[in-house]
Amino acid sequence: MDTLNSGDTAWMLVSTALVLFMTPGLAFFYGGLVRGRNAISTISLSFVSMAVASLVWVLWGYSLAFGDGNALNAVIGNLSHIGLSGIGVDDISGGIPVLLFVAFQMMFAIITPALITGAIVERFRFTTYMVFLVLWLTLVYAPICHWVWAEGGWLFELGALDFAGGTVVHINAGVAALAAAVLVGRRRRPAIEPHNVPYVILGAGILWFGWFGFNAGSGLAANGQGVNALLVTNTAAAAGALTWGILSYIQNKRVSAVGIATGAVAGLVAITPAAGFVNVMGALVLGIGAGILPYFFVLYRPRLGIDDALEVFGVHGIAGIWGALGTGVFAVEAIGGTAGLLEGNAGQMGTQIIGVVATIAYSGVATLIILKVLDLIPGLGLREPERAEDEGLDLAAHGERAYVADGAD
Amino acid sequence: MDTLNSGDTAWMLVSTALVLFMTPGLAFFYGGLVRGRNAISTISLSFVSMAVASLVWVLWGYSLAFGDGNALNAVIGNLSHIGLSGIGVDDISGGIPVLLFVAFQMMFAIITPALITGAIVERFRFTTYMVFLVLWLTLVYAPICHWVWAEGGWLFELGALDFAGGTVVHINAGVAALAAAVLVGRRRRPAIEPHNVPYVILGAGILWFGWFGFNAGSGLAANGQGVNALLVTNTAAAAGALTWGILSYIQNKRVSAVGIATGAVAGLVAITPAAGFVNVMGALVLGIGAGILPYFFVLYRPRLGIDDALEVFGVHGIAGIWGALGTGVFAVEAIGGTAGLLEGNAGQMGTQIIGVVATIAYSGVATLIILKVLDLIPGLGLREPERAEDEGLDLAAHGERAYVADGAD
Amino acid sequence: MDTLNSGDTAWMLVSTALVLFMTPGLAFFYGGLVRGRNAISTISLSFVSMAVASLVWVLWGYSLAFGDGNALNAVIGNLSHIGLSGIGVDDISGGIPVLLFVAFQMMFAIITPALITGAIVERFRFTTYMVFLVLWLTLVYAPICHWVWAEGGWLFELGALDFAGGTVVHINAGVAALAAAVLVGRRRRPAIEPHNVPYVILGAGILWFGWFGFNAGSGLAANGQGVNALLVTNTAAAAGALTWGILSYIQNKRVSAVGIATGAVAGLVAITPAAGFVNVMGALVLGIGAGILPYFFVLYRPRLGIDDALEVFGVHGIAGIWGALGTGVFAVEAIGGTAGLLEGNAGQMGTQIIGVVATIAYSGVATLIILKVLDLIPGLGLREPERAEDEGLDLAAHGERAYVADGAD
Repeated sequence: MDTLNSGDTAWMLVSTALVLFMTPGLAFFYGGLVRGRNAISTISLSFVSMAVASLVWVLWGYSLAFGDGNALNAVIGNLSHIGLSGIGVDDISGGIPVLLFVAFQMMFAIITPALITGAIVERFRFTTYMVFLVLWLTLVYAPICHWVWAEGGWLFELGALDFAGGTVVHINAGVAALAAAVLVGRRRRPAIEPHNVPYVILGAGILWFGWFGFNAGSGLAANGQGVNALLVTNTAAAAGALTWGILSYIQNKRVSAVGIATGAVAGLVAITPAAGFVNVMGALVLGIGAGILPYFFVLYRPRLGIDDALEVFGVHGIAGIWGALGTGVFAVEAIGGTAGLLEGNAGQMGTQIIGVVATIAYSGVATLIILKVLDLIPGLGLREPERAEDEGLDLAAHGERAYVADGAD
Repeated sequence: MDTLNSGDTAWMLVSTALVLFMTPGLAFFYGGLVRGRNAISTISLSFVSMAVASLVWVLWGYSLAFGDGNALNAVIGNLSHIGLSGIGVDDISGGIPVLLFVAFQMMFAIITPALITGAIVERFRFTTYMVFLVLWLTLVYAPICHWVWAEGGWLFELGALDFAGGTVVHINAGVAALAAAVLVGRRRRPAIEPHNVPYVILGAGILWFGWFGFNAGSGLAANGQGVNALLVTNTAAAAGALTWGILSYIQNKRVSAVGIATGAVAGLVAITPAAGFVNVMGALVLGIGAGILPYFFVLYRPRLGIDDALEVFGVHGIAGIWGALGTGVFAVEAIGGTAGLLEGNAGQMGTQIIGVVATIAYSGVATLIILKVLDLIPGLGLREPERAEDEGLDLAAHGERAYVADGAD
Repeated sequence: MDTLNSGDTAWMLVSTALVLFMTPGLAFFYGGLVRGRNAISTISLSFVSMAVASLVWVLWGYSLAFGDGNALNAVIGNLSHIGLSGIGVDDISGGIPVLLFVAFQMMFAIITPALITGAIVERFRFTTYMVFLVLWLTLVYAPICHWVWAEGGWLFELGALDFAGGTVVHINAGVAALAAAVLVGRRRRPAIEPHNVPYVILGAGILWFGWFGFNAGSGLAANGQGVNALLVTNTAAAAGALTWGILSYIQNKRVSAVGIATGAVAGLVAITPAAGFVNVMGALVLGIGAGILPYFFVLYRPRLGIDDALEVFGVHGIAGIWGALGTGVFAVEAIGGTAGLLEGNAGQMGTQIIGVVATIAYSGVATLIILKVLDLIPGLGLREPERAEDEGLDLAAHGERAYVADGAD
């Protein structure tokens, strides 16, 4: 039996807290980008994910994702740990309590669907989203998580590298967002200016901070690999931010603040699958690419006619794919035990491509089906009525206003 | 002599920082809920607690709370550690430096009175609050803290379970808030709408994040019990948030964002005394109850004629009592070493009830006396003059305005 | 070879994250203090420091600051670790990975120039600042950092005490800010009222929280000295906040909320060099002094005719000098191994004075030269045109507006 390592446990407790904190950060990042009359609605889509996903995870999500699925174990876990039954407070695995792994992974299950909401803000029905959370976590997140991170999962066994969630979190969320944006349809008046840019930057700052737990916690230990993950995470964020800022300057002779913040997030996305495998130089290239590719995709996206309102696919999908493939290129054997293309291991690229394609296909199709079903259920439906959309969802769906002038009471 | 465990020390350093961070979080939670013209005032009531309580604690508060009171040790400590004298930088207790225990406990002494301020915002006199802080920490907080958490304290010796402050922090603050609201009286115009809902949710997010330090740090170690505390804390927060959200939907056909945030806080309150003793299923029940009981109390509260402006008693008092009693019901021997009612230990319930009643009685009476005395001291007084209340306390008491339109300068 | 200590590593991973988080905190502290039409600009000056300084540091900054400069080692490192070459993921020094020391130090290199920006907000050219970052980090920050903290640096060898950056960070930034304010010149309309006081207090709260990593991480271990650093850091912050608040009350019969926040920051600055060397009583005196000296300097500053807009020299320079000298007075041998004046070691005062004077002289002169050169380079220049300053830099330099009324789209 493994023994508890209090240092690793300390770091994983913190990492868990840091990843939890990312979701309020995301709420502000997204909340600042929308109209003021949809600020509460947008923030609440993230915040309610903390409530619903936490419960799904401890009740059955963890068991589905990390249980032993026996005959089906290549694709899904089982229900043996429903309500976390069978996991004792003193059960240790690899130096940390098993319950800590449960909690850490829970935070990923919270933020992944929250990421999706950026595509559907300003018109999606809040109560339907709460049901969507339950279904999507069960039918999309848990299986893909099992494929990639559970022993016996088919991508895990294939040797696909995804240190902290390039496929499981970012490509998955990005593709689901795209599917949702298509199905939900465009806002009645799509073009907007962010209502509060300081919120956007505060949100990005919290995300950057929390991402250290996300990536540097994903090795489950306070050791050299975790430290390397923190360092390359920071490097890629910086490179993404600077690249996006420079591109905005080249295009408009002005450095966009929202652009710097967005570039940082894109850099963080790209390094996520790679953080345990690449060095600082690889991170630099991944970050620069994450500043370039999403930048041009975001410019081009409106021509697709898809109203992915806050560019979830552009930032999480595109940078996620770039990062997942880049991991296959830049992986350094001395860091994470696996060589990439640059060290002569061409085969890893094939594995990475399989992981990316499988995630895109499954997430896209399954998300479409779930949403289609929700659309057909009486009393649910995907979209708020036109009048609510025009009025703003804060009042229409929550009965609240984000800001009340000083004198009002 | 004990030896330093660097992992436990790391976790407790972080927990201490996390609990400190809760007070700015609370400042925003409360600050968003009031009128814009009282935003600075409300935020400052919390922020100044960080200043005053920190000094009281290192000068004499810690010594009173955790010193050895000899003949009086059942009810109070002594002054032997004034200015932390006699505590060396290398003194270790149970794996962590004694000074770290001092610092961790200090953060609880900061936030407890800050919680009270929610009841008296928009009319309480700021300078009087600064004096109140000194008296209340000395005469109310330190004794109750000693009863429950210091070796030799009478509730400690009785075996009352309060892992992280159900009685010491939440019931104590909730009852003091009620007493203060009664004595200070109602605002001239009580009914308000929150002036900034995003602040409320940001505040709740920071509280949720920081509460991991509050609860999972209260075992003073990075071990299985601490991990369990984090997990059940998150579960109860989620259950409280979801329950309150659903109730608001049932009542108004709209999910209240402020309601979700408030429900999360209520869930966090309820799990606080229980976090080291219950499992996820117990946490689920505690969280759901924390969504229900305060919800209905808050609906009913205005009929009491008491202007507990931000529902401190409803959220901290009611959910605190529910949690303290629930700890006696749901405690699991395998987790924290003590069985509760469900495992056949009916006696624990009696002990819990004694702890709750004693805290309510002492906190209520002592707070009333302190405030009554402050009211009579010339130059102090509890309440700002009517004109200041109408103008808003930001300008009247601080000479500042929270928001200045862009052009103003 | 040293062995990894997972507890120390856990704490340093967290400390690194905490110090990173200080820069968004600073962004809000500064961003709230300026006009609304310069909010994005001000926040972005800090945020872009995270991007540029991170890259400078991993590419050559760390090597310059901590490499072995051989013959020049008294004053500067070398380029042997360009791109962090030669540092393996498993290289350990003193219990933590060397890469973790690199990352922790990087966060100091981010925030130091960001501190400077408070002096030049509302008129400095953003693109020039990005170039300034590269030059200043290379030519000013890296050398001073090497002098004080690198083995072989002349102030290090002299025995100057600077636990967490009184000279390297605060005096350095404060003096550079003064130099920059002089050279850039006054704003066209200097007098302003903060546009958002809650941001200021949120920023101060984040700074206080993050400063625990800054100071308590600077011993590079989760041990008694680190714990002491956290405790004295909190004490000095509290004393600074309370002192400033009381002074503002004496002067205006109102407690200034911005004053409490500013006093907290000044207290944090003063304790920074001392945190590993003084006890709580020393911290109290340092904090009170940090509330008094900058308070009066800030009152007096406008008469100097220098538009140090957000009082960077007053808060970081003055409190930094006070702290650096105070370290020589209050250092306790039992805590950090070195006695101060009060324990009879008068010589330490001389060393402290040398460190302070050297930092002031070098930072002042070198910063002036760098800015002078930037001013002369065609296409750069220090200042935005008058029209941009009047319009506000958010629109003029970033093409963005911080706040858009709800209906706008």
